[in-house]
Amino acid sequence: MSEGVEWALHTCLNLTWLPDGQAVPTGRLAAFYELPPAYLNKQMQALARAGIVSSTPGPRGGFRLAREPERITLLDIVVAIEGADEAFRCAELLKKGPGSDPATDYRQACLISQAMHRADLAWRRELAGQTLAGLKASVETTYPDAPSGTTDRLMGR
Amino acid sequence: MSEGVEWALHTCLNLTWLPDGQAVPTGRLAAFYELPPAYLNKQMQALARAGIVSSTPGPRGGFRLAREPERITLLDIVVAIEGADEAFRCAELLKKGPGSDPATDYRQACLISQAMHRADLAWRRELAGQTLAGLKASVETTYPDAPSGTTDRLMGR
Repeated sequence: MSEGVEWALHTCLNLTWLPDGQAVPTGRLAAFYELPPAYLNKQMQALARAGIVSSTPGPRGGFRLAREPERITLLDIVVAIEGADEAFRCAELLKKGPGSDPATDYRQACLISQAMHRADLAWRRELAGQTLAGLKASVETTYPDAPSGTTDRLMGR
Repeated sequence: MSEGVEWALHTCLNLTWLPDGQAVPTGRLAAFYELPPAYLNKQMQALARAGIVSSTPGPRGGFRLAREPERITLLDIVVAIEGADEAFRCAELLKKGPGSDPATDYRQACLISQAMHRADLAWRRELAGQTLAGLKASVETTYPDAPSGTTDRLMGR
């Protein structure tokens, strides 16, 4: 998994503490963790294409979350950056095996493929069960001092 | 995930149908799915280092499972080929963030890292819950004709 996933997760979480009606330019988001702005911007564009953040142009423009943190899951963010492909790619090995049937879709018929798919589903289910709102609440409980500093930095104060 | 995982899973499953006391040379295992023998041999060596298969030298030598199929999980095989690293690698982004504490291990403290780790555990739990013996039994139920052909080919008949 690319480092862009970690950047995107932290950046989106930070944006949950941005006051309504505000937007943050990429440079300021990148400065948060000393990230290369051009490369972070690529991740932000991918998040925008996935409808997770929206960008507003102009001198006071930048990025904000495009929908409520309750409606953004960690899976949404991971898929926006990494794509929806499963880690295990079934190449339908059985097609080349003895007695194979050219008409069979071995991604469906192969029990190994099914088992690997179930594991992928378990991973996705876990990430889909965690929203930015839930993560925000956990941070606020565990590290009560963190959010106000984050808001200040997002606002360039 | 590399294609070697798929090769290793299918090859190990096939070896569950090998009669006791037999061993199969790499060339014959590779011919099963028209795989490049030298590259499959690399996967077999990795499986041998992990104690999943054992190799016997000599003209009638080759590979067999090193322990009972009940004691080999899909996770064992995946880890033997891919290593034990998690897909998400926490680079401790928070270390570079505002107010960070150099003494903190953010792989533990960071709630994003924890959430990604939980998803990885869910994936591992699923794969660890599936043994070669279970997969063998499922194949024998679903495709009752397949195992005898597999045994014949493993024996070079």
